[in-house]
Amino acid sequence: MGNTKDYAWEVVQFHGTESAVKDDEIASEWPLTVMLNGDEFATMVCSPTDLDDLLIGFLAAEGIIRSYDEVISISVDEYKGFAYITVRNELETIHQDHSKRFIGSCCGKSRQFYLKNDAKTAKTVYSSISISVEQCYVLMEELQCQSVQFMRTGGVHNAALAEPDGVFTVRTDIGRHNALDKIYGHMLRNRIPVKNKLIVFSGRLSSEVVLKIAKIGAGIILSKSAPTDLALRLANDLRITVIGFARGSKMNVYTHPHRIVEAQKNN
Amino acid sequence: MGNTKDYAWEVVQFHGTESAVKDDEIASEWPLTVMLNGDEFATMVCSPTDLDDLLIGFLAAEGIIRSYDEVISISVDEYKGFAYITVRNELETIHQDHSKRFIGSCCGKSRQFYLKNDAKTAKTVYSSISISVEQCYVLMEELQCQSVQFMRTGGVHNAALAEPDGVFTVRTDIGRHNALDKIYGHMLRNRIPVKNKLIVFSGRLSSEVVLKIAKIGAGIILSKSAPTDLALRLANDLRITVIGFARGSKMNVYTHPHRIVEAQKNN
Repeated sequence: MGNTKDYAWEVVQFHGTESAVKDDEIASEWPLTVMLNGDEFATMVCSPTDLDDLLIGFLAAEGIIRSYDEVISISVDEYKGFAYITVRNELETIHQDHSKRFIGSCCGKSRQFYLKNDAKTAKTVYSSISISVEQCYVLMEELQCQSVQFMRTGGVHNAALAEPDGVFTVRTDIGRHNALDKIYGHMLRNRIPVKNKLIVFSGRLSSEVVLKIAKIGAGIILSKSAPTDLALRLANDLRITVIGFARGSKMNVYTHPHRIVEAQKNN
Repeated sequence: MGNTKDYAWEVVQFHGTESAVKDDEIASEWPLTVMLNGDEFATMVCSPTDLDDLLIGFLAAEGIIRSYDEVISISVDEYKGFAYITVRNELETIHQDHSKRFIGSCCGKSRQFYLKNDAKTAKTVYSSISISVEQCYVLMEELQCQSVQFMRTGGVHNAALAEPDGVFTVRTDIGRHNALDKIYGHMLRNRIPVKNKLIVFSGRLSSEVVLKIAKIGAGIILSKSAPTDLALRLANDLRITVIGFARGSKMNVYTHPHRIVEAQKNN
């Protein structure tokens, strides 16, 4: 979490009608244009940290690469805000499919909402991970304690790679999706197997978040925020356990509660 | 706010290690593919309310239309999740510019971060609106009181069109940008002048939010959440007053504080 690159800004702070001028720390937002095999592919805004993780996770989530081996080179021009990436794959078919909505009747009812590249990369999760309620509460607290930047700026989301016994890696970004992409990229770059891993998250659980969890292959997503109905229908289909509103010693399990077990079984 | 179309979902609710099964209300998320003059233009996910406002606001924010008169027809197939829109403008140049990053040295330092269609539509705001601190606190409270859906589902954002004396119109969506697009569309469809209006908002203040406020032409954005540095640099350039962390009787004014005046001056 060290390299957060926040920005100082002079702010007029009101308490009631009294005001004082002070310097405040502001979360940094940074536009990054991704050039892929020489062509402009996307422009994202992100927190300027862990950019290699972000780029690798983003390309994998978009279905451009399946493993880190498919990446020939990555370089980032921090001054201009451009990333130059070369991958082994041909990009012609990618461009045709990209962000076209996939309306099929072949699979589960919710699947018609997939984008075509999601249908290729989001797979049903057969993870046999299990976790106790107490472990969930502890993991959520660990995420929040490690979220130094959130406490300073209030403007970022956190995602963590965890096992039931503890949090491994926390990634932070102004964008919810970027925080997850940074975790995904970290896993791919370091060849970390997803078996017995879960994702702990600060953000709301939309369909896109659940699809990303399916791409990562994690069996459980644990968040302090609320889910949407489409996210839950997808999670049901994809066999992902969605836990939301995890705050203090309360939480809601929305899908596949069989992965929540008695405390003893995990030891 | 009536027509929120939330979804009931059976949830296992834990308090400590005790669990109970109950029906919970979940914010609805709905994919909508926009067909523009016969071509696929975009797929968004949104809350399925106020769709005409959303579509008009979205097209205006993207620089496709400048007024409601340029729209020949709109129809929404709610079952399939498709919107069919015909506009007067030719779309060839639009497709070339769309989402290309605009890197120029001609204007303010922050402007190099604009997308090309933003550079066309986001204009410096010369609004002479002013507001007192007390009015800000009251408006924020009004937004939260009207946010029935947020209290029920925890999963939506709210944007309101307001004058210093009170909130006019509240729009709700699972997406921050959609909530703002619904306000923009409402203003365009009803030809509501922006003079002496401000926007009250529940979400975080990113560069995209500030650009949208500039497109709407509002002089003040008042939010309960945090800004990013890029948002503040753009707001500085675009002469928008950014007020963040407005909670209870506290708030931070980040840019152009000259629009915050003593209570008497507004009567």
